[in-house]
Amino acid sequence: MTLAKDGRIGVPLRWRDLDHQGHVYHATLLTLLDEARTEWFHGSIGVSSADEYVVARIEIDYVAEIVRLDEQIAVDFSVTRVGTTSLTTREVVWTPAGREVARAVVTAVMWDRDARRPRRLSEIERLRAGNYVTPETTEGVHA
Amino acid sequence: MTLAKDGRIGVPLRWRDLDHQGHVYHATLLTLLDEARTEWFHGSIGVSSADEYVVARIEIDYVAEIVRLDEQIAVDFSVTRVGTTSLTTREVVWTPAGREVARAVVTAVMWDRDARRPRRLSEIERLRAGNYVTPETTEGVHA
Amino acid sequence: MTLAKDGRIGVPLRWRDLDHQGHVYHATLLTLLDEARTEWFHGSIGVSSADEYVVARIEIDYVAEIVRLDEQIAVDFSVTRVGTTSLTTREVVWTPAGREVARAVVTAVMWDRDARRPRRLSEIERLRAGNYVTPETTEGVHA
Amino acid sequence: MTLAKDGRIGVPLRWRDLDHQGHVYHATLLTLLDEARTEWFHGSIGVSSADEYVVARIEIDYVAEIVRLDEQIAVDFSVTRVGTTSLTTREVVWTPAGREVARAVVTAVMWDRDARRPRRLSEIERLRAGNYVTPETTEGVHA
Repeated sequence: MTLAKDGRIGVPLRWRDLDHQGHVYHATLLTLLDEARTEWFHGSIGVSSADEYVVARIEIDYVAEIVRLDEQIAVDFSVTRVGTTSLTTREVVWTPAGREVARAVVTAVMWDRDARRPRRLSEIERLRAGNYVTPETTEGVHA
Repeated sequence: MTLAKDGRIGVPLRWRDLDHQGHVYHATLLTLLDEARTEWFHGSIGVSSADEYVVARIEIDYVAEIVRLDEQIAVDFSVTRVGTTSLTTREVVWTPAGREVARAVVTAVMWDRDARRPRRLSEIERLRAGNYVTPETTEGVHA
Repeated sequence: MTLAKDGRIGVPLRWRDLDHQGHVYHATLLTLLDEARTEWFHGSIGVSSADEYVVARIEIDYVAEIVRLDEQIAVDFSVTRVGTTSLTTREVVWTPAGREVARAVVTAVMWDRDARRPRRLSEIERLRAGNYVTPETTEGVHA
Repeated sequence: MTLAKDGRIGVPLRWRDLDHQGHVYHATLLTLLDEARTEWFHGSIGVSSADEYVVARIEIDYVAEIVRLDEQIAVDFSVTRVGTTSLTTREVVWTPAGREVARAVVTAVMWDRDARRPRRLSEIERLRAGNYVTPETTEGVHA
């Protein structure tokens, strides 16, 4: 993964991300989003690894095909809700050419791996997450 | 894939469906749902293969973990909306022990692979889909 | 997974196993082989799960394409070498129509997951493995 | 993917490349190798895309675990055999810390996608491939 400008997270595509129809498989895009989210959580919120959260809910609109020539995607993150144990993020996916290809709203629950149950957000995590809440991101995926 | 009773579609798990956290990876569950949906579309609606549709929108709640001992999942399908070029289905995922593990609402758009664009549902597809619309399935994923 | 006759192990295909070229992706076939091997190890050798071994070496010849219409593959296993901590198996992959599509020789090392290092085969594992050593399987993948 | 120094090809890891045992899954490493090979074929041999070849044979030794902290792998390529329709490459996989984690010998067959059959290497492809044949790479994976 590579950090692009303005806090965007870039994820390089692989040929195997394509399906038989010649575009990135819809389920695989969620793997790419997860990869970008983990990097964003790490850099922006202080969540250290993918083992520290589980995905509880996803709403995603596939707006346009992602093809091999796109080579990588970039994802913009903002926060729509800070819960007791969860963070809800708005995630917009772009190709390098600036075409919007998907938008999602994802609820991640912080996870205590040993106890196999949710854990509360720490104070510092809540504070940091608060920095990424913006009015235009509170209206949900269809806004 | 194997057809279970009552139109349920079963999909056997693979060990590789698990992630580092020891449960079926959230993105992989969408691959499993897609596999079940394609079989259901084939048997119930007459859509012949996975190459004939693309997924345009997914809303999914992950209710509980799916672990290796579950061995397979079963998916119940019903129709919440019949569009001009799309079908929206409500998809409920169960373990063999009868535990509900996920529920989703998915919009699939019929796809003309050669032209790379949506195609209209045929009359027979609309008729068949109509058979699976039930009142309790029109209320959405949170109903 | 389903047990077919004569100790063969069957693994159903998924549409996502196909790649952009329309056949099962070569790396994905190893996932399918792994799934079959784990079931065979469990039923024939008494190795309880995929967490108990790691793959140390693979030699595989892709003899023919596996396409979606094949629906599932079947794998025949035999043992070519019983080591101190490892088992080497000869694995032949068939389509339901009886077409040979791949043959592999795979060395799996028994794995102590907590210690993250190899463990010795137990006496009973060695005895059982010995039952599956046959002369024609000792000549390697090109025999 | 990113080109590292000396013709090495780098491929960033994803969290989902890990399996339940906490290291990169053995079958997934072949996806990573394939990604690197396609880039190397493109830059060094002039094969334009992954759709232009199929993998016919793989011999791979997994020398050490690849874990998440490795973040990416680097692959060195050389040529061990130039055939009529195929290229055999020796592929050595490194972590950024300089630890060798796998070595493979892979035979790729040039593929005519429309005709679904092998095609001959072009003169220019043969010439370019010849530049990467070195004595020490002709001895096979166990040399």
